[in-house]
Amino acid sequence: MIVGIIGMGLIGGSMAIDLKRRGFAEKILGVEKEPVNASAAASIGLCDEVVTFEECVDRSDIVVIAVPVGAAVKMLPRVLDRFQASDAKGKIVIDTCSTKSQMVRSVHYHPFRACYVATHPMAGTEYSGPWAAMPNLFDGRACIFANAEESDPKALATVEKLYDTLNMRPTYMNAENHDVHTAYVSHISHVTSFALALTVLDKEKDEKHIFDLASGGFSSTVRLAKSSPDMWVPILTQNRENVLKVIDTYLEKMREFRDAIEDFDSEKIESLICDANRIKKIIR
Amino acid sequence: MIVGIIGMGLIGGSMAIDLKRRGFAEKILGVEKEPVNASAAASIGLCDEVVTFEECVDRSDIVVIAVPVGAAVKMLPRVLDRFQASDAKGKIVIDTCSTKSQMVRSVHYHPFRACYVATHPMAGTEYSGPWAAMPNLFDGRACIFANAEESDPKALATVEKLYDTLNMRPTYMNAENHDVHTAYVSHISHVTSFALALTVLDKEKDEKHIFDLASGGFSSTVRLAKSSPDMWVPILTQNRENVLKVIDTYLEKMREFRDAIEDFDSEKIESLICDANRIKKIIR
Repeated sequence: MIVGIIGMGLIGGSMAIDLKRRGFAEKILGVEKEPVNASAAASIGLCDEVVTFEECVDRSDIVVIAVPVGAAVKMLPRVLDRFQASDAKGKIVIDTCSTKSQMVRSVHYHPFRACYVATHPMAGTEYSGPWAAMPNLFDGRACIFANAEESDPKALATVEKLYDTLNMRPTYMNAENHDVHTAYVSHISHVTSFALALTVLDKEKDEKHIFDLASGGFSSTVRLAKSSPDMWVPILTQNRENVLKVIDTYLEKMREFRDAIEDFDSEKIESLICDANRIKKIIR
Repeated sequence: MIVGIIGMGLIGGSMAIDLKRRGFAEKILGVEKEPVNASAAASIGLCDEVVTFEECVDRSDIVVIAVPVGAAVKMLPRVLDRFQASDAKGKIVIDTCSTKSQMVRSVHYHPFRACYVATHPMAGTEYSGPWAAMPNLFDGRACIFANAEESDPKALATVEKLYDTLNMRPTYMNAENHDVHTAYVSHISHVTSFALALTVLDKEKDEKHIFDLASGGFSSTVRLAKSSPDMWVPILTQNRENVLKVIDTYLEKMREFRDAIEDFDSEKIESLICDANRIKKIIR
């Protein structure tokens, strides 16, 4: 099978590595608009050929859109248009974006909608670009299929096989639920990390040595603040309503904490921490 | 040298392991008020003997106070009183607490103040109790010495040797600066993690499967929310003023983010994220 990957970054590049070496793809075509990234992807060996968007869509059996969601939402209809122009009903396009509602909405009435399978492989690191690509990135993680009933069953089965090759656990839900869930378990964590980084970096202007004391706990809490704006600006704007709702709940909790500390209310602080400790049942 | 450790938890227990096996302590005496923890500490072999507070102070060359800071601030004067009662000028007491101002203030005018060396070994995990103790916990981390000039130089040298045995990097600062710094690089991270856990756990009441999607990024951001109230209630109340100041700056940053998202202000979101990305120069 020929797999065309548009966007040879962390996600696209890591997919390329494992789909090729595990025998799912006999050939990987890569599309990359940044010349530096394109030549890196080629020389690292992430793809067999760097091609144009049009060539990728025409020659691939499966097209993977692995670009930030702002660009993806414009690119998806163009891929389906091109499938339609050549009446290529057996072709498949998937995306890997972190928000799903706008993606599925953008092609809801497209005559070739059934060729599209909306997915979100929930894996990643805070790094980006072809240099960040790595083998085994997806192993053991969850992959969401959104609105799977709108896809052609044969296309769906092929994409399920693709993610099975990547050792991912499939989960099915509608796009709206997906976006609510990810606002809670992914998007808010990024916003809180960004804000934490800004807070401490601000202080560093006066206190040069403040980071000498940074502990492992601090690093882990602030790690996501290294994530790129190219990826996160479109996520936060596309998932605006859900993200705002979560931020508001979060701000309430912060304020409860703040007030308890201001009031020296040890009992209240203790009860908040005990409640928060219930997270132990979720994460190891 | 006989080392007496009061509080055989994560910090006290881990110290015990490395001070003994690296030959700094020929004998470890342990004090532990929780009977379950005491018998665990003994059977794990963290200490050679479990003894009473009084016996520990009388028989040890160095007493290590490794209990939560609320209890520590009451215990420290009692140790110095007992040194004084037996006119034991060569004895040493140290503490390992995460806030230092109240500790040094509590014995500032004590006639035996010079026997006390205020330290904060900046290492730990989100776990507690003797079962959490581990070898090599302190290797390569920073240890703060607060107000070192108020300690007897010979006592200071001995304690420096103790932390050198633990492979820690010594840093010297006054207690007030310590508490400002740790508010930024440690205490605030805990508060934001607790609040994040509360936010998501709240949502889980309606959405049972929300955590199925939790990614590595979420786990890392929320990890500190497993930290115990016994340790954190006294830290947050003792370092109240600094912590409140940092929370307020943090809330401002969160609100900037929130407003930019609400206004669909992509440029502003991008500039906030780019600013936050400068954290890369600090953490790998």
